[in-house]
Amino acid sequence: MGVVITNPKNPTVKHLRSLMANRKARRHERLFVIEGVRAVEEALRSHAQIAFGVYNAEQLADSERGRAVLAALREQRGVQPASPEVIAAVSDTVTPQGVVLAVGWPALTPQRRGITLVLDALQDPGNVGTLLRAAEATAVAQVICISGTADVYSPKVVRAAMGAHFRLPIVQDVSWEQAPALLADADHIYAAVPDATMPYYAADWRQPAALIIGNEANGISAAGLALATKRISIPMAAPVESLNAAVAGSVILFEAYRQRRLGRS
Amino acid sequence: MGVVITNPKNPTVKHLRSLMANRKARRHERLFVIEGVRAVEEALRSHAQIAFGVYNAEQLADSERGRAVLAALREQRGVQPASPEVIAAVSDTVTPQGVVLAVGWPALTPQRRGITLVLDALQDPGNVGTLLRAAEATAVAQVICISGTADVYSPKVVRAAMGAHFRLPIVQDVSWEQAPALLADADHIYAAVPDATMPYYAADWRQPAALIIGNEANGISAAGLALATKRISIPMAAPVESLNAAVAGSVILFEAYRQRRLGRS
Repeated sequence: MGVVITNPKNPTVKHLRSLMANRKARRHERLFVIEGVRAVEEALRSHAQIAFGVYNAEQLADSERGRAVLAALREQRGVQPASPEVIAAVSDTVTPQGVVLAVGWPALTPQRRGITLVLDALQDPGNVGTLLRAAEATAVAQVICISGTADVYSPKVVRAAMGAHFRLPIVQDVSWEQAPALLADADHIYAAVPDATMPYYAADWRQPAALIIGNEANGISAAGLALATKRISIPMAAPVESLNAAVAGSVILFEAYRQRRLGRS
Repeated sequence: MGVVITNPKNPTVKHLRSLMANRKARRHERLFVIEGVRAVEEALRSHAQIAFGVYNAEQLADSERGRAVLAALREQRGVQPASPEVIAAVSDTVTPQGVVLAVGWPALTPQRRGITLVLDALQDPGNVGTLLRAAEATAVAQVICISGTADVYSPKVVRAAMGAHFRLPIVQDVSWEQAPALLADADHIYAAVPDATMPYYAADWRQPAALIIGNEANGISAAGLALATKRISIPMAAPVESLNAAVAGSVILFEAYRQRRLGRS
């Protein structure tokens, strides 16, 4: 425990803000910022490397879970007490819960064969985070983000992913040249496209497979389509022609999970 | 065609802004605001009642579809040409496409028996709009919004719904006392809750049914649970315990649509 930080221009505060705002800073240091009791619980439970951060004891003491987090943080080097004004200065939310930390990028390797989700230049951070959450919920083996995809360590993605970063193997900045080596296990590489005749539920998802989800406006790139071995679509009622990318990906992932569960039972 | 509006304080401009910002104004006049070429195409195709609005001919003339919209708008009473500054003043987007209209609330009645989607006080407009889009894509018969749900005519919901308002019967401000009469057709009323033992795919969605999706933070209300005849859950891999509400609803709606399509084939 150190001296309470009260100056929003303190170097630790500036460092947190730079990591939140700046993709290059995150990449250079291989750190990202998490905020709130639940996110810190997930980080502690996953033994994430906590680099530094700030907390406010009074705000955390508001809840039982906050008090448990507070007790754990007091034993962490580099995590300092701070005033509510400082917490507000580094918080991305309207009602801060009293803790903001910089943590190391988890280095997870796939523990099983199964489904690989490939995001082909998805640009909306909310969509990327929602898909990471759905991927974890459906026991996806790994997520590969092709270059051009929103940074998975940006605050918006981290918030929408609800802790998936700490448990789901994610590889970023992958070029289409590098992708085949990462997908070597897949029996089939499915491209989700609007006009395919094969419905997504006709695929056999009990086999190791990859699923490519395309950019919100432009769909899957030519290189992605070239790598795909099958094209699938989500049948829908006319005149609707497309879905939100996070919804489309989630619908297919949950069908895959349904098949894998039924196949096991 | 009238005189080109150049003053952002023009009464028509103020009226549009009031309808965008103010739920009471929308309710009082039973109007809502749509923006952009695609939304106006949907409105024209559905013979929506166009009350008034503004357009900029140069901006619309940028694309072939814009020019077709421009030709149609020039024959509309109450729709006036306006400067780019005026368009920017009533636009909710970064790069306005040159048309913003106030249109009447569609009065659609369900044309078929089938699935009724019930939103129990969903608060995020993006979630509500995404679910309306998914409901239309899965041929849902009607959507019922229980009081406390985000206004379906707010600009954020309208944008995310991608035109669903013009084709999907939607009833708002429904109390739980009024709900049974609207759900009389349903063989079963399913409540999606995290701890139910029945998976969503074990339900027979080929029968007329209702599906209740609960509030993001608090789930389904006591009155909603009391009305439900069966509880279902979406199985997911630990430690994930919940999904984004729009994803959860969409996953179940697409399973229902899958069953109904396979049942017909």
